[in-house]
Amino acid sequence: MNEAKLNQVVKSINPLQQDVMALVQQRLDSLTKPPGSLGKLEDIVKQLGGITGNVLPLITQKAVLVMAADHGVVAEGVSAFPQEVTPQMVYNFLAGGAAINVLAKQAGAEVICTDVGVAADLEHPKLRMKKVAKGTANIAKGPAMTREQAIAALLVGIETAQEQIAAGVNLLATGDMGIGNTSPSTAIVAVLMGRPVEEVVGRGTGIDNPGLERKIQVIKQAIAINQPDPEDGLDVLGKVGGLEIAALAGSILGAAAGGVPIVIDGFISTAAALIAATLAPASVNYMLPSHCSQEPGHILALSHLGMEPMLNLSLRLGEGTGAVLAFYLVEAACQIIRDMATFEEAGVANSEQ
Amino acid sequence: MNEAKLNQVVKSINPLQQDVMALVQQRLDSLTKPPGSLGKLEDIVKQLGGITGNVLPLITQKAVLVMAADHGVVAEGVSAFPQEVTPQMVYNFLAGGAAINVLAKQAGAEVICTDVGVAADLEHPKLRMKKVAKGTANIAKGPAMTREQAIAALLVGIETAQEQIAAGVNLLATGDMGIGNTSPSTAIVAVLMGRPVEEVVGRGTGIDNPGLERKIQVIKQAIAINQPDPEDGLDVLGKVGGLEIAALAGSILGAAAGGVPIVIDGFISTAAALIAATLAPASVNYMLPSHCSQEPGHILALSHLGMEPMLNLSLRLGEGTGAVLAFYLVEAACQIIRDMATFEEAGVANSEQ
Repeated sequence: MNEAKLNQVVKSINPLQQDVMALVQQRLDSLTKPPGSLGKLEDIVKQLGGITGNVLPLITQKAVLVMAADHGVVAEGVSAFPQEVTPQMVYNFLAGGAAINVLAKQAGAEVICTDVGVAADLEHPKLRMKKVAKGTANIAKGPAMTREQAIAALLVGIETAQEQIAAGVNLLATGDMGIGNTSPSTAIVAVLMGRPVEEVVGRGTGIDNPGLERKIQVIKQAIAINQPDPEDGLDVLGKVGGLEIAALAGSILGAAAGGVPIVIDGFISTAAALIAATLAPASVNYMLPSHCSQEPGHILALSHLGMEPMLNLSLRLGEGTGAVLAFYLVEAACQIIRDMATFEEAGVANSEQ
Repeated sequence: MNEAKLNQVVKSINPLQQDVMALVQQRLDSLTKPPGSLGKLEDIVKQLGGITGNVLPLITQKAVLVMAADHGVVAEGVSAFPQEVTPQMVYNFLAGGAAINVLAKQAGAEVICTDVGVAADLEHPKLRMKKVAKGTANIAKGPAMTREQAIAALLVGIETAQEQIAAGVNLLATGDMGIGNTSPSTAIVAVLMGRPVEEVVGRGTGIDNPGLERKIQVIKQAIAINQPDPEDGLDVLGKVGGLEIAALAGSILGAAAGGVPIVIDGFISTAAALIAATLAPASVNYMLPSHCSQEPGHILALSHLGMEPMLNLSLRLGEGTGAVLAFYLVEAACQIIRDMATFEEAGVANSEQ
């Protein structure tokens, strides 16, 4: 039943509208600048044209979908922060005091916070309560969750995106909160890309050298014990993933199915994007990159998805902070095609003509 | 007389206020995020604290200083666009139709346009008319300008920055317009960094392969004929530079002397920043990087100045477009330190304590 719903969403993702993209390219080349000189801003507006069918795309309403959950693997000592920080930070998001609140406010975007698996009982009028489980099981000892739970968490993400799109949002971003979540993200990226854990792993929120060694061993053990199948995104997600990672992958699928672009935040979000791409390759067309974090696996996963970061700020916070900063660049791309003068209008000589 | 004025400005540049920077660091580490996890945003706000003496810096008024001039070297066929495009684009700036107008409007910044050496008679109520000469001479055959002209153009930039600061602007950016100006910029970077022209040169607005070969030969000839002294920034500027490059170097010195941070745009602006750094090493503390263009010399010059680009958008337009996009990131850094909750305020456990 749930798996059928998921498959239906995957099947409903449309390809980009190539004819509209050609019209966008034509207009870009008529504007008073050397052809291609606005680089990735031109690529973005072409992609937005292909997604929306509008030659002059316009962003009118923005939201960042912050998914929160806990991870049994923190019992292995893989994080610099204790697990109680997950619910504490969720309350901080709801009170407006976190970095994502400050940056979303600057961007004119709403922060939509969902509990998909925090290991504590939370209650707040602004919190979307969609708990699938009170945290995952310890991946170093067995699967993080059942396949059914993975599907349920994916559906939470899909529905979150659908709700926001129905409310008028036409630019989404992914964000995460979950102490310990660089460990499952590293496992996902290592398995889906067939890379050794050592190449993918990083220090997360700031673990020390012995902690990093332990983290590598724990992730290797998680992969060895669970034997996730790299051809089966649901299997990888359920065995070595996380509930917020599943919900973020679902958010991406929901955005793509709803015809709305979604900006991918940091390493955890990019691991979720790899899962989404495995489940629905067409969803990649709806993803926009944002920044490159200091987790070594982030740039590997981005390039696997054919994306290059637009921001180079050495961020390693998550929450959607890098993604909402990139909203500004997406809007800049739209302003360029809408407001710049053409060579003809401005009476400027065009070397190309 | 003019050289004395210049020296006075150079001498008046203050070092950063280290005590304020320490207080900024202390506050950053009290905010609800892992220490250092906001990367370059944290570096920016520390730098702004050191510049302004304010632990909670705030940007209230922004302007991009677009300097326009022509280059005798275009006679050698080094550009994809004809020289008449310089005045045409200046009128486009004044009419509000160029990329810099669109992006400055989005940033809430004013575009201040100055004719410091366009090879045509321009007139417009909004144009600052500060022409030092009708373009430079052809650097492939002799010096671009006299030492006196270089100083005069530097002073135009200094005065432009001073005027804006007096009007209340507390965040500046550099921008350029001048057909052919990647050639003098390449010469400046090659000479000041002691690098071969081949390592620094790029395609500018989009020259083809034979054009690129010609451009390399022309720049090599310009350096060989003029023998600029890499220890003497004024000598390099006068012999192989440009009038808008001089005015941009002056804008940077004026910003630094006035205690205001200035965002450096693309390759031409960064060549100007190298000149400013040669004339006044302390001015580097007032520079903020923005993007990395496709000119190979850009990243070389940035790293020589100890700066890393924040934006990776493959821009190659100039005008200040990359710099005004970075205004948003500078403002984000200020919002972070002003508006985020501390661990104590939010009741979040801090692993560092």
